[in-house]
Amino acid sequence: MAGEPQADCLFCKIISREVPATLLRETETTLAFRDINPQAPTHVLVIPKAHYPDAATLATEAPELAAAILREAGEVGREEKLDAPQGGPGSGYRVVFNTGSGAGQTVFHVHAHVLGGRGLEWPPG
Amino acid sequence: MAGEPQADCLFCKIISREVPATLLRETETTLAFRDINPQAPTHVLVIPKAHYPDAATLATEAPELAAAILREAGEVGREEKLDAPQGGPGSGYRVVFNTGSGAGQTVFHVHAHVLGGRGLEWPPG
Repeated sequence: MAGEPQADCLFCKIISREVPATLLRETETTLAFRDINPQAPTHVLVIPKAHYPDAATLATEAPELAAAILREAGEVGREEKLDAPQGGPGSGYRVVFNTGSGAGQTVFHVHAHVLGGRGLEWPPG
Repeated sequence: MAGEPQADCLFCKIISREVPATLLRETETTLAFRDINPQAPTHVLVIPKAHYPDAATLATEAPELAAAILREAGEVGREEKLDAPQGGPGSGYRVVFNTGSGAGQTVFHVHAHVLGGRGLEWPPG
């Protein structure tokens, strides 16, 4: 069934606490934890507790949950003191969803990368 | 009022057709057009027609519209033939929201960058 936990999914195991992670935030429907291989001073993953493979599927099947991921990404920015929308270098944050292995997706449980705390280059990879 | 067009906003002017753009897709609530300074073979911006400054604000004030942006980003991936979630290099796509000038946001009308058609590096900027 859409959204059900998957036995072989790393992020479902983090949600069930079978696999440890450095948790930052939790809501009824979402979890935010630090990336194990951080690419910036702030590098947090925001995931829905329900399992959906990618952002487009999530947004189609559970639109309110997709919005919750973007809201929680904003809360991470706020908690990490990155929310100065028109501030200087090092302020602000980038939210990234990869879809497909060619784009760098390695876990097929949708996750938003939230990066900040350093200058962020362009292009984004 | 939240969502109202802003006189000095480039993307509001693209929506009103005062400023031209290479349109890819349009729905009742969203517009997708090619980035004028593309960073990949596919580099499309998906925006809501209503004006919100950033992703977190959009997701808070108009959650269904935030989900629509992610759905349309997926449609861009499909139209550009990038939707091979577990395919090889060059497949897949990356969706990026910048919040704040320090993260590279230059237009303060929320937009999703959809990039693909080439290998995408990590970190994402």
